[in-house]
Amino acid sequence: MITSIILINTERTKVNTVGAQLAAIQGVDEVYSVSGRYDLIAIIRLKNIEDLARLATEKLSHIDGITHTESMVAFKKISPEDIAGMFDLGS
Amino acid sequence: MITSIILINTERTKVNTVGAQLAAIQGVDEVYSVSGRYDLIAIIRLKNIEDLARLATEKLSHIDGITHTESMVAFKKISPEDIAGMFDLGS
Amino acid sequence: MITSIILINTERTKVNTVGAQLAAIQGVDEVYSVSGRYDLIAIIRLKNIEDLARLATEKLSHIDGITHTESMVAFKKISPEDIAGMFDLGS
Amino acid sequence: MITSIILINTERTKVNTVGAQLAAIQGVDEVYSVSGRYDLIAIIRLKNIEDLARLATEKLSHIDGITHTESMVAFKKISPEDIAGMFDLGS
Amino acid sequence: MITSIILINTERTKVNTVGAQLAAIQGVDEVYSVSGRYDLIAIIRLKNIEDLARLATEKLSHIDGITHTESMVAFKKISPEDIAGMFDLGS
Amino acid sequence: MITSIILINTERTKVNTVGAQLAAIQGVDEVYSVSGRYDLIAIIRLKNIEDLARLATEKLSHIDGITHTESMVAFKKISPEDIAGMFDLGS
Amino acid sequence: MITSIILINTERTKVNTVGAQLAAIQGVDEVYSVSGRYDLIAIIRLKNIEDLARLATEKLSHIDGITHTESMVAFKKISPEDIAGMFDLGS
Amino acid sequence: MITSIILINTERTKVNTVGAQLAAIQGVDEVYSVSGRYDLIAIIRLKNIEDLARLATEKLSHIDGITHTESMVAFKKISPEDIAGMFDLGS
Amino acid sequence: MITSIILINTERTKVNTVGAQLAAIQGVDEVYSVSGRYDLIAIIRLKNIEDLARLATEKLSHIDGITHTESMVAFKKISPEDIAGMFDLGS
Amino acid sequence: MITSIILINTERTKVNTVGAQLAAIQGVDEVYSVSGRYDLIAIIRLKNIEDLARLATEKLSHIDGITHTESMVAFKKISPEDIAGMFDLGS
Repeated sequence: MITSIILINTERTKVNTVGAQLAAIQGVDEVYSVSGRYDLIAIIRLKNIEDLARLATEKLSHIDGITHTESMVAFKKISPEDIAGMFDLGS
Repeated sequence: MITSIILINTERTKVNTVGAQLAAIQGVDEVYSVSGRYDLIAIIRLKNIEDLARLATEKLSHIDGITHTESMVAFKKISPEDIAGMFDLGS
Repeated sequence: MITSIILINTERTKVNTVGAQLAAIQGVDEVYSVSGRYDLIAIIRLKNIEDLARLATEKLSHIDGITHTESMVAFKKISPEDIAGMFDLGS
Repeated sequence: MITSIILINTERTKVNTVGAQLAAIQGVDEVYSVSGRYDLIAIIRLKNIEDLARLATEKLSHIDGITHTESMVAFKKISPEDIAGMFDLGS
Repeated sequence: MITSIILINTERTKVNTVGAQLAAIQGVDEVYSVSGRYDLIAIIRLKNIEDLARLATEKLSHIDGITHTESMVAFKKISPEDIAGMFDLGS
Repeated sequence: MITSIILINTERTKVNTVGAQLAAIQGVDEVYSVSGRYDLIAIIRLKNIEDLARLATEKLSHIDGITHTESMVAFKKISPEDIAGMFDLGS
Repeated sequence: MITSIILINTERTKVNTVGAQLAAIQGVDEVYSVSGRYDLIAIIRLKNIEDLARLATEKLSHIDGITHTESMVAFKKISPEDIAGMFDLGS
Repeated sequence: MITSIILINTERTKVNTVGAQLAAIQGVDEVYSVSGRYDLIAIIRLKNIEDLARLATEKLSHIDGITHTESMVAFKKISPEDIAGMFDLGS
Repeated sequence: MITSIILINTERTKVNTVGAQLAAIQGVDEVYSVSGRYDLIAIIRLKNIEDLARLATEKLSHIDGITHTESMVAFKKISPEDIAGMFDLGS
Repeated sequence: MITSIILINTERTKVNTVGAQLAAIQGVDEVYSVSGRYDLIAIIRLKNIEDLARLATEKLSHIDGITHTESMVAFKKISPEDIAGMFDLGS
């Protein structure tokens, strides 16, 4: 399982249509229109990096109105219990 | 219910400890260490903007090792069905 | 009640027309043409985040001549009395 | 009467104390903690540019914990009626 | 009396024509073509902020070939004698 | 005669003292504290580029509290009459 | 198998020592000192994203002298034959 | 032998076709589509700087759909044994 | 004698033609295509600032395919013997 | 023979000393203090890329007071005659 977060800018009149098309793609779990420098944030969950490659370089490119994307691949989901392990780091 | 996404940079040796402390805060749903320009992404879900204010300007500031944050407030969660409504926009 | 401040750039000949159209939108309290890197600043006051979503992703997109926006959601209005409460923070 | 908007960044633990000290300065009408790239936005209303000079280069500098400011001077408050006058511009 | 400095970029073939048109506007005291990241710098001196508003958002927008402007409003002209007064600041 | 414009940032508490020290340097014609991303703008007029070199790399470096400078050398002062000559350019 | 490229900046005197320490980490295939805005580029090849997480957020943080990193995860290695498949995309 | 790494952005629909055309050029060893701010990374290995000049300013310019490139020339491939030599540096 | 260095970006297919046209201009001593964020660097040597003004704002603007320039004026050529003089600076 | 141009920023009081130390390094042909965003520009000419590696990652790091460098490697010196060859490019 691989998680990716994508920060997206769109043409001004297409925030909601781009968002809805994104949300319809398999593997796109959540899409939010957001305040700030970006227009949309998409949270992606897919089986492996090959599926993510297909989504990022092929499926997204079919959506009209996207002007900029910056994708981040999650290395790891961090939980509160990870603090314990942390103390080993400096030793 | 209000959703917020926070892009976070930390001191180099504290990615995981900052992440674990974040994950322990009430309202912080998910924390990921990520590739790219940021170190961590936190997804926050809280009842209202007052709770978000408290988290963003007070609780986060107690975590040692955060060097930069950029928060985004979700305007709306977009679903595939939102496409239909879109066509009304231009009319 | 939710407050939002939007930093806006427009096409060079449309600062005033964009400003006037913004000022006519319900919930847009104040619009200023300003010195510096931005052309206009709008101060928005609306009942809730759903209204703000509608304004930011739909109503603004109907105004011709906007080239860039960066919105900020106010977490909290701060008053001088908040200093007292501050001293509790470190304890 | 002159209006100025100031975008402010503070040390991480001082968003609220800086905000409260700002709010206590004469001429500072509103101070908000905000989402996004800045920590605080202050809206200033003063009689003239000399008062603004004093606030921007002297009074602000006495507040401990401000790391960055970017001030904008309002040229003009724009109202919906300004649209009419706009049509003259191109003629 | 209000002083403003404007940093200007123009289309590559129009540095001198934009500069000459700027120099012909009432209140524009000096215009220089310059080395570095900007093409022109204009120094403006006008009676009040209303005149500056008119120049910045209306008159400049009639000049063809300007691609970017960043205006700064002078708070105060500083003279060597201001050093004396400075020592009072910390007291 | 050579003209140079310098955009200056200072430590927060030293805008006015740096400005006053700058204004006392021979060849520094005008110093303004300004709104926006910079703290001070200095307008320099000197006999030749050697004098400017001395001012920029030696005299300025003796002033405590400057954190950043960006200097621009004026190529030419542009006057309204330069429009006429412009029409020759394309021929 | 997952490939990652990391752009690295180091303290000025530590380009080579940081590079050598990086090169000694298991999974770090190639390290180059480079011209331009970055000091080092590391090419990483590891079995899975968990190993990459460990390298990026733990092992790198033990190397003294790194001031900035920006990691990219390879979606896919592209070969010349991929052109054929491309023509299907628009259909 | 000279090694160069090129960070590439492409038009949104052309990541894979640009990548495949790049991969077909002699001297282009590896091409990856990547997460983050860039679309593609190419690793080039050529006999000398003249060949690299030809690739960078001529061959790349024949590929349609590239919007931005930033090339880095490898000074040196660093190996773990370089640590020893490092200790001489300070002496 | 005045020396200027210009950092230049060109349309992707025109690096060499722009470079050759630049190299043919009187006063342009050296032109290099370069790695990194810029496409070309030109080193200019002219008798005085008026000649440089003409080159920067007129002659360069006749060359088709330049998209961006940033010029720097050399204050002074520094030689190893300048170290001696340096020790006087602090006195 | 390899040519490299390095854009350099220094601590404010060290522009001239850093410049003189640079100028004393073998292979450093010219050093200029310059207007604009950078403090110094160095033009390097060395026999091969190994010598350049040594200069960039070892010799420069011994000079105290450098805060930032960005090096560019010259692909090719362009001469006016290169225009002829250009016309072949499109054929």
